[in-house]
Amino acid sequence: MAGLFRYPRCLMRFEITTLGTGAALPARGRYPSAQLLNIHERLYLVDCGEGTQERLRQAEVNFNRIGCIFISHMHGDHYLGLMGLLSSMHLNGRQDELLVFGPPELKEVIDVQLRASQTYLRYPLRVRSLAHKSGTVVYSTDRVEVLTLALEHRIPTTGFLFRERAMLRKLDPSKVASIPHFARNGVKEGEDLLLADGTVVPNAELTLDPPLPRSYAYCSDTAYAPELIDHIRGVDLLYHEATFTDELLARAKETMHSTARQAATMARDAKVRTLLLGHFSSRYKSNTVLLAEALPIFSNTLLANEGAVFRIDQRTSV
Amino acid sequence: MAGLFRYPRCLMRFEITTLGTGAALPARGRYPSAQLLNIHERLYLVDCGEGTQERLRQAEVNFNRIGCIFISHMHGDHYLGLMGLLSSMHLNGRQDELLVFGPPELKEVIDVQLRASQTYLRYPLRVRSLAHKSGTVVYSTDRVEVLTLALEHRIPTTGFLFRERAMLRKLDPSKVASIPHFARNGVKEGEDLLLADGTVVPNAELTLDPPLPRSYAYCSDTAYAPELIDHIRGVDLLYHEATFTDELLARAKETMHSTARQAATMARDAKVRTLLLGHFSSRYKSNTVLLAEALPIFSNTLLANEGAVFRIDQRTSV
Repeated sequence: MAGLFRYPRCLMRFEITTLGTGAALPARGRYPSAQLLNIHERLYLVDCGEGTQERLRQAEVNFNRIGCIFISHMHGDHYLGLMGLLSSMHLNGRQDELLVFGPPELKEVIDVQLRASQTYLRYPLRVRSLAHKSGTVVYSTDRVEVLTLALEHRIPTTGFLFRERAMLRKLDPSKVASIPHFARNGVKEGEDLLLADGTVVPNAELTLDPPLPRSYAYCSDTAYAPELIDHIRGVDLLYHEATFTDELLARAKETMHSTARQAATMARDAKVRTLLLGHFSSRYKSNTVLLAEALPIFSNTLLANEGAVFRIDQRTSV
Repeated sequence: MAGLFRYPRCLMRFEITTLGTGAALPARGRYPSAQLLNIHERLYLVDCGEGTQERLRQAEVNFNRIGCIFISHMHGDHYLGLMGLLSSMHLNGRQDELLVFGPPELKEVIDVQLRASQTYLRYPLRVRSLAHKSGTVVYSTDRVEVLTLALEHRIPTTGFLFRERAMLRKLDPSKVASIPHFARNGVKEGEDLLLADGTVVPNAELTLDPPLPRSYAYCSDTAYAPELIDHIRGVDLLYHEATFTDELLARAKETMHSTARQAATMARDAKVRTLLLGHFSSRYKSNTVLLAEALPIFSNTLLANEGAVFRIDQRTSV
């Protein structure tokens, strides 16, 4: 069974914790935007509103496991928790490099504050500027790549697409004994097996399909932006802001936010598997009204919630 | 009884709400520094660590009633909640001027962030730089004046002394009928009464002592700084940081913080009425160890606590 367990399931996690689901003026019990992604036990933070470090403590996350932070835009409810988090990592003795991606203005905002507090971080901090366009790979490892999404908001705002890398094929447990050790890596990579007697065993007879690469798109804050559909088509999970109900469509347009109906329309048209709504205006004491608006258009819709964990499970067929 | 009720007691409040009592890395349940002062129904905020707006919401304070904010220094645990609060005031439709006092670097930190978020505040914001010296009156009204205290910390840090203005003398209720209306203001100001027949009634026979002016000193963050004693002598309430116990005196010196023993020594030597300890290191899960250290030196010592209200009552004699 070695092939099946090459990546232990527990190390293949792909999950999103929504730490904050409120809009600029959060209602009681809601917090500004922040999400923690665990992809194969690597932690990524997407947006970092005020108080995010407090939310991370509540979720019992070791800050220093976070390797990258992605900031969508420079509205305070998406980044004002960053300086406190950077400072706490420093005080906690972090030594590993931290990568921060954000709008070009972010670096000055960080530098001015480090200078004012005379803080000399103990760890290397790299701040990288995002251009406002879709489809640029800004980060990649052997497990995941992160692409940009040009959202439509009052100031330049970038969403993020997290895409798992294609995995190697799995050796069929019933056939693994017949494959010489030296040939196994090649077979996992899709090669046919050439036996000593010249026989060729087709790869399909020796391997099983690997799990499909999983994907997650983060779209907040944005007006209804159908030009994003090509970039998020078929993602497993789409987090799309739903600040208002359609009754406030004019207000949504004016502030360049979306309504729940528009979020659901995006999910339907992009044929995503699951839609996760968030960034709720504080006027909605209960956000079920937003869910009710989305469901008739896209039935597989969920509501984000403070501290809730959304796991994307592995599957091998569409 | 009109004289006695000239200032209704409920409008003569002098109270301090400690919103956050933690140090740079707050323990669970503690928050970074912030205090709300209510002096005669005018609200002042002293320091504004990350999450202060959330604490103010919990305390059911209308942000827009806050007229002045005083920032002691540019360490993140004392100011990182400011931008979020300024932004929420804006989104809540504030129109009244807001005064913010802080180190010279504060203005740039605010301006850079307003620019990055393309925020044009709806209310006038005046940011005033504090020079690092004691005894300067930086704000005054007919009710209160605020003076600076040059604290000793790793970066320039200013404490604040809030001093109630001397009040008018009170007309003795049993004598008030004998004082002509036109003469009452003069008598309250301490003048003797000249009757129509030429008789002079000494002021002491017509009036009662007004309450003594109350005072509050905020000293955080600071190393043990006996040169402050002359400036805080006899205050009703001294908030003094007590980051460590004396066991960690070397660490206190190195980081330019105080121990509880040092805070108590300051209180005793400055002959203050009450000492309030705060800014507790997260290593102390219970802060009673800090209280226990202070009490033998200064018995009238209290522990600050998240959301606790400390009221300074009026009194007419020492």
